[in-house]
Amino acid sequence: MCLRNPQTQGAFMPDMKILTEQQLRTALPFDDDAVNCIEEAFRLLATREVVMPPILSFHVPEHNGEVDVKTAYVPGIDSFAIKMSPGFFDNPKLGLPSLNGLMVLFDARTGLVNAILLDNGYLTDVRTAAAGAVAARQLSRADSTVAGILGSGAQARLQLEALTRVRHIKSALIWGRDPEKAEACAHDCRARLGIEVSTGSIDEVMEKADIVVSTTPSRTPLISASMLRPGQHVTAMGSDANYKTELETDVIPAATLFVCDRLEQSILQGELRPALAAGSIPEPASYAELGEIVAGLKPGRESPHDITVCDLTGTGVQDTAIATLAWDRASKTDAGVIIHN
Amino acid sequence: MCLRNPQTQGAFMPDMKILTEQQLRTALPFDDDAVNCIEEAFRLLATREVVMPPILSFHVPEHNGEVDVKTAYVPGIDSFAIKMSPGFFDNPKLGLPSLNGLMVLFDARTGLVNAILLDNGYLTDVRTAAAGAVAARQLSRADSTVAGILGSGAQARLQLEALTRVRHIKSALIWGRDPEKAEACAHDCRARLGIEVSTGSIDEVMEKADIVVSTTPSRTPLISASMLRPGQHVTAMGSDANYKTELETDVIPAATLFVCDRLEQSILQGELRPALAAGSIPEPASYAELGEIVAGLKPGRESPHDITVCDLTGTGVQDTAIATLAWDRASKTDAGVIIHN
Repeated sequence: MCLRNPQTQGAFMPDMKILTEQQLRTALPFDDDAVNCIEEAFRLLATREVVMPPILSFHVPEHNGEVDVKTAYVPGIDSFAIKMSPGFFDNPKLGLPSLNGLMVLFDARTGLVNAILLDNGYLTDVRTAAAGAVAARQLSRADSTVAGILGSGAQARLQLEALTRVRHIKSALIWGRDPEKAEACAHDCRARLGIEVSTGSIDEVMEKADIVVSTTPSRTPLISASMLRPGQHVTAMGSDANYKTELETDVIPAATLFVCDRLEQSILQGELRPALAAGSIPEPASYAELGEIVAGLKPGRESPHDITVCDLTGTGVQDTAIATLAWDRASKTDAGVIIHN
Repeated sequence: MCLRNPQTQGAFMPDMKILTEQQLRTALPFDDDAVNCIEEAFRLLATREVVMPPILSFHVPEHNGEVDVKTAYVPGIDSFAIKMSPGFFDNPKLGLPSLNGLMVLFDARTGLVNAILLDNGYLTDVRTAAAGAVAARQLSRADSTVAGILGSGAQARLQLEALTRVRHIKSALIWGRDPEKAEACAHDCRARLGIEVSTGSIDEVMEKADIVVSTTPSRTPLISASMLRPGQHVTAMGSDANYKTELETDVIPAATLFVCDRLEQSILQGELRPALAAGSIPEPASYAELGEIVAGLKPGRESPHDITVCDLTGTGVQDTAIATLAWDRASKTDAGVIIHN
């Protein structure tokens, strides 16, 4: 039990700020700073004594719900976030969104609450897209011009935008399970990014794109080794659970270089899991993490013919980094409700 | 990665309420409802399919900090809490409290946020005191009149008050490591509870009290088997970490009945840990949990001569129960800030 000194109860608590999704969207649109912030977070993950406990995860079986709690303390970042992400998959029947979530940002020196970020998952979207940009900047050919996206949801849109921030993307090809949604996604991207965007099959995407990002919650693989082309970079960011996968088990051994955001997570809930289970790869500890490439500790792409593959499962380090940036931005405005406690 | 449908982003989010420590203190003083609420929570823990994941715990070594995250989903309670408890032990040097914390209360059906309870640990104090009351009501002799408290902090005060809510306590004896603080605690309790309260040694407390509650963060045992008297009830609520203990390893085998709040937790961070390590007890699985006594699934005290001992480590079920009660109470007033998100 926590024993508290009655003399200090409630005394001297600094004010905190409550920020809504709209305020956070205004303060921190997906921009180059967000990409750089996440790149720096990966560098810190590889070079500092980051404390990133395993994800706390539980189910609410009666209501088809699950809840994840992620966090990381990162030396070099002045605050740390605890992120709570509920997903309740019967909500659409009630006219409510399945996914929401919030982050609490604590001062890393005192553990006191700096801010509560009621982002409904927006900051997760941004830090996830930013990780896609970092992977592409670190691993894809510098002369990549054609992007391919598998999936047609919010991350499909954001990942394509992410690629345009780090490479001179001239055109993109989108595949979605539902052709209508894929068309809508292509339309949105065309309007937003001002590049040529069309739709096609997975085979067409893989044949034409220099950089492919898969953004689906698929439980069966979408990309196989035979589809890979020399010089191509593939980022698989859909799998974050032990029943999801986007890559056939022959993809990782076929790549010149395989990189993941966090080895332990890729083994448990990312693309290393099915590859290991199938016996397609021998030794997961030999794979590089993205932060090691960013920090220059391990080599990245070494030739224009290399096939590079990156698996992103999402890390607490990204949450801490993006929440700190969002709060920093919002602090320079008068957005948010201040609570005296 | 969480993939969100852009069509539902930010749509239809119900309002939520932010409540401060002072508003929560006003809405939910420590009262009989709080005791009954926690008793019911223990009953549900023993009889329903409660989901209570292991505590997420991590350290911030640079700043002498630690953070615990607890949660539980309890069928029969309409919401669930995620509690974040930072303890940063260099804070007093900065004029700040070491311990604070908050709870986020989610709707159990939809996973949407109902409320954010900025309680700075107040609700933990209440649910902890309430568990002490439940243990005493379930296990102590009904004719107990003399209370003994080890410790002189906030929980010492609250645990004595808790005993007066369930037994006709006429007098109390308090021991504290610091005699001045023990005197101050005795003075406060006398004034608040209107009973006779004096201070004494641990031996004196153990000799005179019908019910003893130990409330310290001690790392060395305070109570040994030779101090126990027939008919006595002892609740040890200080240990919640694998380096804390208040009971000599001969106490549990000497008790007629040993009960804990949660077996797994008592083994990892409660009083079963040192007793098992010392080989003083053989079979932890045979011990009853408090909820099993409340639910009538296992026998409690069977004679006025029984010696009963209860170990409380603190459970997420209590947090979910007290947070739900606090929000329910506060909802009937206009306290708090409403956030439209």
